[in-house]
Amino acid sequence: MLEAKREGISEEVREVAKKEGVSEKKLRELVAKGRTVVLGEGKRACGVGESLSTKINANVGTSEDYHSLKEELTKVRVAAKAGADAVMDLSMVKPHETLKAIVKASPIPVGTVPVYGAFACRGIDGISEDRMLNEIEKHIELGADFLTIHAAVLREGVELARKRTIKMVSRGGGFLASWMLHNEKENPLYTNFDYILELLAKNDTVISIGDALRPGCIADGGDGAQLHELKVQGELVKRAHAKNVQVICEGPGHMALDKIGENVRLQKKLCGGAPYYVLGPLVTDIAPGYDHITAAIGGTVAAAAGADFLCVVTPSEHLAFPTVEDVRDGVIATKIAAHAADIVKGRGEWKDLELSKARAKLDWEKQFEIAIDPERAKKYFKRKKSNSKACSMCGKYCAMRIMEEVL
Amino acid sequence: MLEAKREGISEEVREVAKKEGVSEKKLRELVAKGRTVVLGEGKRACGVGESLSTKINANVGTSEDYHSLKEELTKVRVAAKAGADAVMDLSMVKPHETLKAIVKASPIPVGTVPVYGAFACRGIDGISEDRMLNEIEKHIELGADFLTIHAAVLREGVELARKRTIKMVSRGGGFLASWMLHNEKENPLYTNFDYILELLAKNDTVISIGDALRPGCIADGGDGAQLHELKVQGELVKRAHAKNVQVICEGPGHMALDKIGENVRLQKKLCGGAPYYVLGPLVTDIAPGYDHITAAIGGTVAAAAGADFLCVVTPSEHLAFPTVEDVRDGVIATKIAAHAADIVKGRGEWKDLELSKARAKLDWEKQFEIAIDPERAKKYFKRKKSNSKACSMCGKYCAMRIMEEVL
Repeated sequence: MLEAKREGISEEVREVAKKEGVSEKKLRELVAKGRTVVLGEGKRACGVGESLSTKINANVGTSEDYHSLKEELTKVRVAAKAGADAVMDLSMVKPHETLKAIVKASPIPVGTVPVYGAFACRGIDGISEDRMLNEIEKHIELGADFLTIHAAVLREGVELARKRTIKMVSRGGGFLASWMLHNEKENPLYTNFDYILELLAKNDTVISIGDALRPGCIADGGDGAQLHELKVQGELVKRAHAKNVQVICEGPGHMALDKIGENVRLQKKLCGGAPYYVLGPLVTDIAPGYDHITAAIGGTVAAAAGADFLCVVTPSEHLAFPTVEDVRDGVIATKIAAHAADIVKGRGEWKDLELSKARAKLDWEKQFEIAIDPERAKKYFKRKKSNSKACSMCGKYCAMRIMEEVL
Repeated sequence: MLEAKREGISEEVREVAKKEGVSEKKLRELVAKGRTVVLGEGKRACGVGESLSTKINANVGTSEDYHSLKEELTKVRVAAKAGADAVMDLSMVKPHETLKAIVKASPIPVGTVPVYGAFACRGIDGISEDRMLNEIEKHIELGADFLTIHAAVLREGVELARKRTIKMVSRGGGFLASWMLHNEKENPLYTNFDYILELLAKNDTVISIGDALRPGCIADGGDGAQLHELKVQGELVKRAHAKNVQVICEGPGHMALDKIGENVRLQKKLCGGAPYYVLGPLVTDIAPGYDHITAAIGGTVAAAAGADFLCVVTPSEHLAFPTVEDVRDGVIATKIAAHAADIVKGRGEWKDLELSKARAKLDWEKQFEIAIDPERAKKYFKRKKSNSKACSMCGKYCAMRIMEEVL
């Protein structure tokens, strides 16, 4: 960010400008203003924010109940292949070993949540502030490109959550809130924020300010606790920019469809246009088993309204630790949301046009080539083939075929 | 509709008012004004339109390449069980036999598209106008509760479609356009519209005015051809209401997310507030194999903006004749869209609240009970169980559990 402010074009800005088809000058300006960030180094660099296509992140990482390093590495590979732009390692078991292996294996930028490691290794309420800060330093050392730091959840915010239907759904936020209440102290990630910024600035690691108080159900969407944290995020964004640390803000969560656009506009306003990274939003609570769909609905609306980065939600959300297949299903659904929003943002519509031209000609190979998931499209097509050139839904009565002939 | 205009409360109005929790008087007024329609008879009656919850329709029916009556009847049963509010039989092979069996078996109202039968039985360009009208009479006789009649696609509209990327995707529309061009005549369903209304009025069959020119790709969304047909729909709605025929209008199709709300508001304005029945809208063309998701995204936005009736799109859309499983997947995705929109409409949010209260308590049985698809939620939960009471995603580190304890 410092280099961008000094009007220098880094290798990463050059790389991202090329990938996105925007000018290096424009991208540099956006990075200098903090409206766009660049995650990762060299060829792996990925731009997130204003004037760029919507990006998606897939979560991986070991859990207390399931922890196979091999499986998590498979998830990274599968997610990247299916179109994820970044992965976050949320490991609770062997967090350092896993992060190291993922950073080595991943073709896309890697994020982490250092408080997970800090708390998982040592229990919740008894750990020291230094332990939390050391863990951040360790994750930077291990090569993470961006870190979620839940610095915006304060004691006042936690108090506001008391009246909620579901008080808190953020794992990192839960650890911190528990620690704050037990120790009767303010959030150490907030009180030590300047020191954390120094750590991040050294390696140009991007900070993603967590949203510990994101609403976990429709009833809590847009409540006082959520807004309290968003305001604190706005303050922290300014402090990060002043220290030349690139910053992203994290957002909800569960929200009714009609509240999403407003929330995105508010985040942009309060946080100086910093990139917005949303988990969903999930537009209903009653579809466990299908939350990749509820999140794709909210994610499309959020990204069309200006959100920049969508976190993958898998079908097993709220129910179980995700399998490799769940991660893939989630990536595809989120990819659909990002692309549908990019059409609104004026980016990527050429793909729809190309596929539709091929569709009108019943050129199946070309359609599969452009499709978001060629393998699945082929599988469906081949499962029930028509005796005509059209698909078996209408067969010889295909309206596209008839109209191409008669018009 | 005549009875409602005369301030009479029919058995069906009573039934729907009870199901929806609205007053009989209010519903009667809405039916009299044509802002709400009642499909079906007796206990099977289903309300569609203003002040009611969003309804969904699942398509079934034989195709040229696949035609098993047994399988189509299974689809009806499965769709109704999964939450469909109506089914449409789109059979191209043995249309009468199939319709008769479906009407007999279906626990929910049944719609059809009579031109399919007319053209499929006799070839496209050579059939007489009488043949088309007789087929409508036949479908009414066989007990269909609502009929799609593509009366609003005129020669002028077809001409406007010439410049499109995909000229036409409506099967019924394709037949009629081909017939009009070949015979150099106006659409017989338009020229004979008053006669058709007489047929429909006799049995109180609802007309669903087809949208033959619905855009089949993002590039064609909101074009002149689509708007031309929508204006004609508006004219036909007035004529139907004048003859006491209940009427629904059909809508798109493929449209970019930011055009959907505008389209719904325009339909409501041009068509006197008549119920709007949309197929999607699909918010991208590039996700064949996942069009239940692209349609759920657009469907949520459409219904939240005022659309009343969502047509199920299955994952095999654009690729193949759907299987029973595809129909079920489509129903669930569409159900999610309808429910998420109903939250915006101020209906049904209590379900989200109940599920979320159970979620905060980690009461799994209660969550499954309220979930849109209890079987799938259970399957995911059981696949990877935690050693704790929480799910295996966070296990003992579940933020909900921690916060319930500490707050």
